Amino acid sequence: MSDQSRTDDAYARAGVDIASGNEAVARYQQVLGAWRHPDQLDAIGGFGGIFRLPGSGDRALVASTDGVGTKILIAAELERYDSVGADLVNHCVNDILVVNATPMFFLDYFATGKLDPSVAAAVVGGCAQACRAHNCALLGGETAEMPGLYAPKHFDLAGTIVGSVDIGDVPNPASVEPGDAIVGLPSIGLHTNGYSLARALIPRDEWTRPFNGATFADALLAPHPSYYDAVRAIQAVAHVKTMAHITGGGLLENVPRTLPPNAKAIFEAARWSVPPIMQELVRRGNLRYEEKYRTLNMGIGYTLIVPFVDAAKAAAAVPGAKVVGWIEQRDGDEPQVVIHESR
Amino acid sequence: MSDQSRTDDAYARAGVDIASGNEAVARYQQVLGAWRHPDQLDAIGGFGGIFRLPGSGDRALVASTDGVGTKILIAAELERYDSVGADLVNHCVNDILVVNATPMFFLDYFATGKLDPSVAAAVVGGCAQACRAHNCALLGGETAEMPGLYAPKHFDLAGTIVGSVDIGDVPNPASVEPGDAIVGLPSIGLHTNGYSLARALIPRDEWTRPFNGATFADALLAPHPSYYDAVRAIQAVAHVKTMAHITGGGLLENVPRTLPPNAKAIFEAARWSVPPIMQELVRRGNLRYEEKYRTLNMGIGYTLIVPFVDAAKAAAAVPGAKVVGWIEQRDGDEPQVVIHESR
Repeated sequence: MSDQSRTDDAYARAGVDIASGNEAVARYQQVLGAWRHPDQLDAIGGFGGIFRLPGSGDRALVASTDGVGTKILIAAELERYDSVGADLVNHCVNDILVVNATPMFFLDYFATGKLDPSVAAAVVGGCAQACRAHNCALLGGETAEMPGLYAPKHFDLAGTIVGSVDIGDVPNPASVEPGDAIVGLPSIGLHTNGYSLARALIPRDEWTRPFNGATFADALLAPHPSYYDAVRAIQAVAHVKTMAHITGGGLLENVPRTLPPNAKAIFEAARWSVPPIMQELVRRGNLRYEEKYRTLNMGIGYTLIVPFVDAAKAAAAVPGAKVVGWIEQRDGDEPQVVIHESR
Repeated sequence: MSDQSRTDDAYARAGVDIASGNEAVARYQQVLGAWRHPDQLDAIGGFGGIFRLPGSGDRALVASTDGVGTKILIAAELERYDSVGADLVNHCVNDILVVNATPMFFLDYFATGKLDPSVAAAVVGGCAQACRAHNCALLGGETAEMPGLYAPKHFDLAGTIVGSVDIGDVPNPASVEPGDAIVGLPSIGLHTNGYSLARALIPRDEWTRPFNGATFADALLAPHPSYYDAVRAIQAVAHVKTMAHITGGGLLENVPRTLPPNAKAIFEAARWSVPPIMQELVRRGNLRYEEKYRTLNMGIGYTLIVPFVDAAKAAAAVPGAKVVGWIEQRDGDEPQVVIHESR
């Protein structure tokens, strides 16, 4: 199940090489291993980097940079510019939420081949609205016109969020133990991952065709939601030990970051539903276990590990939240995530 | 001289539309004008956004996002990946230095069509080295493989820096008055601006040809320096009122941000030298006044406004620094920057 060469089939077919990504990260660690700032509290590869703010007691800043991925190629092709800004901001909000950080400000990077001010304003306006919804300042950004790098109507969108957290509130994977429950928050669609695969399996000429009561385009461009309010609501009634934002790498790569080495997470797939667009991708691509759960979120957008006694309260605090799994003792080099698919 | 339609000729010929950029910024201000975070102290369009850190007295965070521009197309074409990381970090350091901020941490965004881990490591490694030189943490980043958006060997590189400053130390343009002197720090080359124009005027097949004792490629890829140490050295001996990082928009657009409305900056071009690569671009493109001083830095990478009595001390504090101009009273709608070109 953890055979990397087998794993990457679906993404490799779509032109994305997960092994190269992992090798790049390993090389970064070599490059960075030689030096580390004394106020830097978290390693690269985590969801958000943590920086102790000198002279402010136990306050830390948490920052994360991310992009929208090739979802923007669908948005650009269909000239639907209003939603990618919120996709990006919400993605970033969720990334720092896993270390319990509250957003303070955000900066965008919008690059295109031929600058159309109305397109730029729609995209950045989407960022601004999503920032405001989190009481997060849109503190700045960069708009770059780069002919020769981007096709005229193509654009890329990335962003950086900075939040703050008290260091004592940063979740600690060592606190997770066998018997804990995993609460899952539902995904709406692909969010911002798996689009190179989706574009390979659902060709351009099908995007405007009917699908599941709307069109493929609607399903593919379904928003990346913020889990901020849901998480705060659960934290109000339950002790949340650790959290994961299910982005690139899926449940298989994101959940292990929230576990100690001697714990594994068992998911029971029958406990939640898979959005129709992902069922369609699984069917068309004949995606196997590793391909599904590493490339797609498969219906779970965010996970929270809570003590067993808090599980029911936590799931009841938010519409759609469900107890989707539990923690078991892990022996030796067993996989850290196992998803039971009944049938 | 301030005729915008005439101004944009050279850049427009190269496919970059400055008017569209300005219109996009105006639209952002419309979008953002509806709401502003109460802790946000600076408007969009400044060099770095300033955010008052709640509960920390007069401490503020300063953040800036930027890219390398189409300089990376030259680096990618020539497979010279070691310098663009430092170009980007130094650009960002300078951007927040104008509000007197000291760097704390940086995050990169590296996006490419086909991920080559050794290329990614070279680029991000360049960021890491430049960060270390500023005691700035490389706190995180995003590496995105996006087939269909980028050509296989093409890549884009952007980054976000966060620093801190005491609010009382933020320079105030209102303090600038007639008689003040302008100290200029020399540029090494184009830094990170004007590359679409440069690529239009110096075609690909000339890049490896000899130029000025090296090659055109060497001149075009000359590093974007950090002015951090130079500025701190000048501040140790002189009262620095305001500062500008001379990036896109050149002296004509960057210096006005450091002036009150009733002041204008007079530059005497004979006081500094223009790097040969820019002389070559001016000659080949037959660039006129506005084209030169808005598209290129023309030899000045950073400006500091100091009281007349401090001018000589300031210029003597750093090799290459020169008194390049002065401040005069501005009447009505006179241009805020005038460059005297004697000959």
